[in-house]
Amino acid sequence: MNATGGRRRPPTIHDVAREAGVSRGTVSRVLNGGHYVSPSAQEAVNAAIRKTGYVVNRHARSLITGRSDSVGFLLTEPQERFFEDPNFNVLLRGCTGALAAHDIPLLLMLAGTPDERRRIMRYITAGHVDGVLLVSSHSGDPVADELRDAGVPLVACGKPIGQASKVSYVAADDRDGARDMVRHLLSIGRRRVGTVTGPLDTPGGVDRLAGYREILTEEGIPVDERLIASGDYSRAGGEAAATRLLAQAPDLDAVFVASDLMAQGVLTAFHRAGRRVPEDIAVGGFDDSPAALTARPELTTVRQPWDRISAEMVRVLLAQISGEDPAAVILPTELVIRGSA
Amino acid sequence: MNATGGRRRPPTIHDVAREAGVSRGTVSRVLNGGHYVSPSAQEAVNAAIRKTGYVVNRHARSLITGRSDSVGFLLTEPQERFFEDPNFNVLLRGCTGALAAHDIPLLLMLAGTPDERRRIMRYITAGHVDGVLLVSSHSGDPVADELRDAGVPLVACGKPIGQASKVSYVAADDRDGARDMVRHLLSIGRRRVGTVTGPLDTPGGVDRLAGYREILTEEGIPVDERLIASGDYSRAGGEAAATRLLAQAPDLDAVFVASDLMAQGVLTAFHRAGRRVPEDIAVGGFDDSPAALTARPELTTVRQPWDRISAEMVRVLLAQISGEDPAAVILPTELVIRGSA
Repeated sequence: MNATGGRRRPPTIHDVAREAGVSRGTVSRVLNGGHYVSPSAQEAVNAAIRKTGYVVNRHARSLITGRSDSVGFLLTEPQERFFEDPNFNVLLRGCTGALAAHDIPLLLMLAGTPDERRRIMRYITAGHVDGVLLVSSHSGDPVADELRDAGVPLVACGKPIGQASKVSYVAADDRDGARDMVRHLLSIGRRRVGTVTGPLDTPGGVDRLAGYREILTEEGIPVDERLIASGDYSRAGGEAAATRLLAQAPDLDAVFVASDLMAQGVLTAFHRAGRRVPEDIAVGGFDDSPAALTARPELTTVRQPWDRISAEMVRVLLAQISGEDPAAVILPTELVIRGSA
Repeated sequence: MNATGGRRRPPTIHDVAREAGVSRGTVSRVLNGGHYVSPSAQEAVNAAIRKTGYVVNRHARSLITGRSDSVGFLLTEPQERFFEDPNFNVLLRGCTGALAAHDIPLLLMLAGTPDERRRIMRYITAGHVDGVLLVSSHSGDPVADELRDAGVPLVACGKPIGQASKVSYVAADDRDGARDMVRHLLSIGRRRVGTVTGPLDTPGGVDRLAGYREILTEEGIPVDERLIASGDYSRAGGEAAATRLLAQAPDLDAVFVASDLMAQGVLTAFHRAGRRVPEDIAVGGFDDSPAALTARPELTTVRQPWDRISAEMVRVLLAQISGEDPAAVILPTELVIRGSA
């Protein structure tokens, strides 16, 4: 920034000190409440602040309080996923709203590549945000570890695999939600119930598959591995997985899909194969995201309580910023019956 | 943040000064290049930085240089628009990529309400970003003025109405692009050519409509106001505008729509009304966004050079951060012929 040219730049603590004829330390002490500052110096600093138009100056305040009064929403997924999956939109809106009640702005950080993560980590650890709401939960994602090691308050959305005891997180009860859905598919008379899983390095992938296996086992139905295909939470991934399922198990009569967006892809594949939903194959989703309502037929699904998830993420993060220890919050899901199963 | 509890917090310049046994000013001078610092003090500070794990410390550097080495991408539109309109995705990717070449992270700021704008302005003017890429161009949007008055380097995407001489911006040549499209619609034999405009408090709304009027006038075709309907750049807005056009001018045989996303809505309305595209009504869009390719038929449209727009926005912003005066950059568009006209 050109401090001498004709362009304006925000006044700094230096400008205030120069204008007031005091040291920068004196300005800092005034900003910090005026301890150990003479009344005349305090008056000079306040006048200089007014004259220079020095704004709240969170730079200086940050040095004093260690706070920026802001929170980052960090998504360590490719940018495309952010725009494709309506879950992120819903979660972002919820977190923005919950922070608004505290008058705290949310900074959105998309870091899908190692270089983007490195740059954003540098920004975060420099103190430009007070804490981070972390979205993405692939195991092996180094970001949670890096943030924790840097002492940055952090709450993950979903249980970070392998780090559960050290990192705060808020999650829906994935296993229980999956159990409800598979039990429902059996209750409407289906016997060849398959599943399209999420990525198996994510808690939603692992735990929803575990719930599926549990119910089949409890009902005395042998688990047939040909009825299991893994997806990547994308629409295209769901479509590809459904195509594999039809090839492996043509007698499939129901499928539990671990996300609504993937379920949209599953519907596309079944439609192309001439299978009617729900008549020939019942389809159950997971999330109750906006994708459940734009699907045809509308999806029977498992509702994640997004409002509560985002509110709890913000609550736990602010508590941690205030010095509390990490915490995990697990919230119940709810089965929502619509047209697809 | 709890400085005394068991939790770690990022070390501050205070911690370094305490550890080194020097004043904070001395630490600042070391961080700023070591002028006027004795070799022994410099050594003590460097040792203290290593011992405390004090990271790059952009807080302190910001006080010295006035820089955070980051840039904000500020969207003053409702969050829903951000997810609905693929233009934002494309522009964001381009800006992120252009900044990556300078190793500068991008912070995404969504501020659709007055309260959100106030919070984000507070964050920006506190110096947490060095400059702002501003997206949204409704006239009367106070953000551009506020940023300029606060001395924050700023580049708008699209010409800010009423502020063109004071604020940097990068824009496609809206008027020329509209002229190309309307000329094309006439060249394929259409004579009742309507238009769905963008909001008329945006440059894209005003200038694309101006191009439409110009070509009709140049061709000696009287402008019929029943052939003009205004939209809001959303899919639903395009659908509603097309429905009004059909009611006002049932003999419509072509329509120039000021955005691809609105054109998707226009196609929906025409399909419902039993009008074939392009046989009964030719449809031309604007943007060449991903929406042009997911439309059926694929849209004939006007390509905005998004890669160049984002690259130029970043170039002009970084120049301004370095002290250059504002600049405006206008880039040419290109007619892209596909199935809809």
